[in-house]
Amino acid sequence: MTVAPTLVSQHRCFDGTVGFYKHVSEACGGEMRFGVFVPPQARERKVPVLYYLAGLTCTEETFLMKGGAQRVAAELGVMLVAPDTSPRGAGYPGEDASWDFGVGAGFYLDATQAPWSARYRMGTYVTRELPALISEHFPAREDREGIFGHSMGGHGALVCALRNPGRYRSVSAFAPIAAPMRVPWGLKAFKGYLGEDTNAWRAYDATELIRAAKSPLPPLLVDQGTGDKFLQEQLKPELLREACAATGQPLTLRIHEGYDHGYYFISTFMEDHLRHHAAALNA
Amino acid sequence: MTVAPTLVSQHRCFDGTVGFYKHVSEACGGEMRFGVFVPPQARERKVPVLYYLAGLTCTEETFLMKGGAQRVAAELGVMLVAPDTSPRGAGYPGEDASWDFGVGAGFYLDATQAPWSARYRMGTYVTRELPALISEHFPAREDREGIFGHSMGGHGALVCALRNPGRYRSVSAFAPIAAPMRVPWGLKAFKGYLGEDTNAWRAYDATELIRAAKSPLPPLLVDQGTGDKFLQEQLKPELLREACAATGQPLTLRIHEGYDHGYYFISTFMEDHLRHHAAALNA
Repeated sequence: MTVAPTLVSQHRCFDGTVGFYKHVSEACGGEMRFGVFVPPQARERKVPVLYYLAGLTCTEETFLMKGGAQRVAAELGVMLVAPDTSPRGAGYPGEDASWDFGVGAGFYLDATQAPWSARYRMGTYVTRELPALISEHFPAREDREGIFGHSMGGHGALVCALRNPGRYRSVSAFAPIAAPMRVPWGLKAFKGYLGEDTNAWRAYDATELIRAAKSPLPPLLVDQGTGDKFLQEQLKPELLREACAATGQPLTLRIHEGYDHGYYFISTFMEDHLRHHAAALNA
Repeated sequence: MTVAPTLVSQHRCFDGTVGFYKHVSEACGGEMRFGVFVPPQARERKVPVLYYLAGLTCTEETFLMKGGAQRVAAELGVMLVAPDTSPRGAGYPGEDASWDFGVGAGFYLDATQAPWSARYRMGTYVTRELPALISEHFPAREDREGIFGHSMGGHGALVCALRNPGRYRSVSAFAPIAAPMRVPWGLKAFKGYLGEDTNAWRAYDATELIRAAKSPLPPLLVDQGTGDKFLQEQLKPELLREACAATGQPLTLRIHEGYDHGYYFISTFMEDHLRHHAAALNA
């Protein structure tokens, strides 16, 4: 049994409900916030759950406000759950100093380095604690979970799925940080949260995990825009493609001419992702 | 001829383009910003234009980021234009003191009271200067214009249309301030911008203008949520209904159980509004 989360605000949307909640997280040692869209079908029965992990600087509100997902989720009968992107208010030195580390940049991993290891445990939070809370307090089917995300959250979605084989029925990503060990964002985060041992990094790098996986994930859908200013230096979808090709991991990698890194891009292809997930979640 | 606006940022979206621009406005005596969605059809031909006026505290970004309109506008071949909600940086005393007057709260009227009268001339800006700029610098049909908006911008859309008979082919509103002369938001704005003469107020009050109109507007579509915390005190759609009933103005006023005042409500019914406009604009 877990303590019910506290409702912060609630908004009717596409005949369902967007709710924002706060609760005291055990994994993260303090208050965490998340958003949920409960589709209208949940008035009659438990529904599948699709987790969305947002990118750097985002909050639990970003996806539900800008993603344009609720319309399609209401049609398909899928619950959407959007956690925040890090603990907040831990008060660690440097926590707020940069936008790509610390607050708003938890990277969906469990930090092992002090002081971060006490609270920056987003890996356990999004794959264990939050799903348990959702299953207990919302009309959610715990046997039907999917996961997707954007940028840092695309990395998070791939890594959460790869570290938990068989757990997620469907996986996708928008412009994921596909090979964090090899790019500046990932190096900064991994050194800070995981220390200097690169073996620890491999456990949170999607391309490394794909190469090491015993069995493939469900078919991946990944969308990437060519106008994304982070494409060359930070995202590197070609390394994801290579890893999938080398191991037989099914991947649909779509390259979209001119689209950038933001929600004007994400919202354009949101419906495709939701239908990709629903096909597996409702099967 | 007008000087071309300066592109601030551009984002591919639903096979069209969201662009944000700035320019020096003659009506507003300084820099103004606006957003435009150019649908894919505009690569081949000029397209109809739908103006969206946002509510208190919003900017030119709000609607394009949160409204979920581009998907449908791209399908229907309609350009979307979203001006900012007031001049900014005029430096008038009290300009930033409250969220319902001054910056972010221009009320889409031409102020007559000093100091506001020098720059707070949003009425002329959104009905004359901006449309001229759009016609000249974008692939827009100047003979096919519609207008809609939310809250203060719903008031603005109704009033712009009523003050310019025959100009707009289609008009709608989400939760408009329907009778500003009779509610606190409107009284504060009208006293500040227009002075104490209530005759000046009538020229910017939708229900008064409907009662005085020589000919009806095109059929109005208005959506209102019952969970809107401003409904009773500030919005008063029943006065709009009465004015329309008394004068034969066609009105479809839809009351939606539980929906509130924000973009979770607006986005839910956005598609209906765009189809309402497109039916007239593409006819």
